[in-house]
Amino acid sequence: MTFRAAGITLAGLQASLRPRLDAVQGELRRIIRSDFGLIAEVNGHLLQMQGKMFRPTLLLLSQEASGPGDERAETHAAVVELIHLATLVHDDSVDHSVLRRGMPTINALFSHQVSVIMGDYLYSRAVVELTRLGEIEPLRVLSRVTNEMTVGEMRQLMAHEPLSYSEADYDLLIRSKTASLLSGACEVGALRAPPREREVLRRFGDLLGMAFQIVDDLLDYTEEEAVTGKPSGNDLREHKVTLPLIHALKHFGPEARREVRTLMATPEPSDEQIGQVVARVAEAGGLDYARERAHRLAARAEQELEALPASPARETLRDSLSYVLDRKR
Amino acid sequence: MTFRAAGITLAGLQASLRPRLDAVQGELRRIIRSDFGLIAEVNGHLLQMQGKMFRPTLLLLSQEASGPGDERAETHAAVVELIHLATLVHDDSVDHSVLRRGMPTINALFSHQVSVIMGDYLYSRAVVELTRLGEIEPLRVLSRVTNEMTVGEMRQLMAHEPLSYSEADYDLLIRSKTASLLSGACEVGALRAPPREREVLRRFGDLLGMAFQIVDDLLDYTEEEAVTGKPSGNDLREHKVTLPLIHALKHFGPEARREVRTLMATPEPSDEQIGQVVARVAEAGGLDYARERAHRLAARAEQELEALPASPARETLRDSLSYVLDRKR
Repeated sequence: MTFRAAGITLAGLQASLRPRLDAVQGELRRIIRSDFGLIAEVNGHLLQMQGKMFRPTLLLLSQEASGPGDERAETHAAVVELIHLATLVHDDSVDHSVLRRGMPTINALFSHQVSVIMGDYLYSRAVVELTRLGEIEPLRVLSRVTNEMTVGEMRQLMAHEPLSYSEADYDLLIRSKTASLLSGACEVGALRAPPREREVLRRFGDLLGMAFQIVDDLLDYTEEEAVTGKPSGNDLREHKVTLPLIHALKHFGPEARREVRTLMATPEPSDEQIGQVVARVAEAGGLDYARERAHRLAARAEQELEALPASPARETLRDSLSYVLDRKR
Repeated sequence: MTFRAAGITLAGLQASLRPRLDAVQGELRRIIRSDFGLIAEVNGHLLQMQGKMFRPTLLLLSQEASGPGDERAETHAAVVELIHLATLVHDDSVDHSVLRRGMPTINALFSHQVSVIMGDYLYSRAVVELTRLGEIEPLRVLSRVTNEMTVGEMRQLMAHEPLSYSEADYDLLIRSKTASLLSGACEVGALRAPPREREVLRRFGDLLGMAFQIVDDLLDYTEEEAVTGKPSGNDLREHKVTLPLIHALKHFGPEARREVRTLMATPEPSDEQIGQVVARVAEAGGLDYARERAHRLAARAEQELEALPASPARETLRDSLSYVLDRKR
């Protein structure tokens, strides 16, 4: 395991890609341009609340690390980000979320109706754009991945039974919900590369994506909120069972188990209840276990990279693993 | 205008297609088969509440009427029906509907969350299936059409301002919301035909589809409900402005206009309020106008068919216009 020292930022990963990422942004803006008032308004809002472009970054790095140029890469990267945006819009609608990255969701700003329809609009725009490019292979990868994400969302709906929810169930969930699109981004970046490298990058993205989601779930237990100075525990609040709890439950005595059962049966658990279970999970080694698991996945992802020729882009892909492990959201 | 006498049923249109439509059903079942419990359950329900297969019928007839065989036609027809199902699931979610064709909606039977996710599941499955067939052209047509339908849904959200909503706005709405997929079904049926016939069938489907939606909107004003013996007026109840009202408003005096404004400002209008406006619309000729308009569109659709070689399928396409005009839902 040879991850560089901490301190790798997303901006650092993206430094060499700046002009290309600007082109991706331009493509994204072109693709969702609309002369229909309400759609243009929602799209304007989406572009503002826009994310960190991590998936486009992975796609472009995968393309550079696997060799041949691909003049479609920026457009593919924009489409991948668009699919990501579409799923966020529907996720917020499904969860009735009002905030995302500190900005009001489409849900909150417009309405539930608008967010369901806009998610459909964005996804079908993505497909239209891919058909315009005229090749079926990116469509094959990205439609499979999108379908997998919906299966992941269904799994999520059922991940509320802590005592019967296993680590294997959790793995299936995070693989379909999160890893699939990150993996798809890497794979689409390598569509012009030899099949073996395409496969390597697909697996790399899958492992990185699983680590990504585990760290995300861990942050819910560890990251102190600005206002309260305590971990948010939002997943517990919403009765979502994630890896730290799944592992801790194996070591819980009857008392701790009872606390979990009570929390899960309480429609709106109190901050005290949540704080108590968070502390129990930490004591029982749930956080350490999840952290280790993320590191093991990242190490396997790093091994995959060995099969690619040495290049600056390959090193940046390696750095992206450190970013995933160290990030604070 | 040479439509045959009334009495043409959907079963009549479908008689010669029976074995092919059975194959379409088989394809549909294959495409949405899932070993994931909840998805399988929802799909089972969808297959039960399944519709009249009007879009697959049009696709197969278009294929037969335009010449060359197409071994993919049954699969394409299943995909078109699947896209139709996906939009129904999201429509019901957007409208919070509890019943469709007398059966509980996915919304009502499972949850809002499940219906948003299942709509996404079904649509992305449709795209996966089309990529499996390996040709980009059906994808091009159907993704464009699906995107248009979402624009139509957005237009629908804004069709609540009776005094500023014009017939031109309404045309844009029904064309994108309804005619697009019917037109897409006809066009995809003709993908192996010469471009001119493909274009003829695309236009035929567009005109038929507009007539279809106008008749649908008309039925809301005319068809007596089993329980009440009165027109449902559901569109008015939901403050949806459709063609009969748009036309009638041009002839309304200040009294009738005031009644409409009051109804539109009442969150849950009474049956009396609705009955009153329905009567006003009928008196002002709104129903006659809408009926005429549907007939004119059907006549233009019929003219398009003249450009196709004579065949039994072409005659059945002609009959489908009579079905659209005469149907009672």
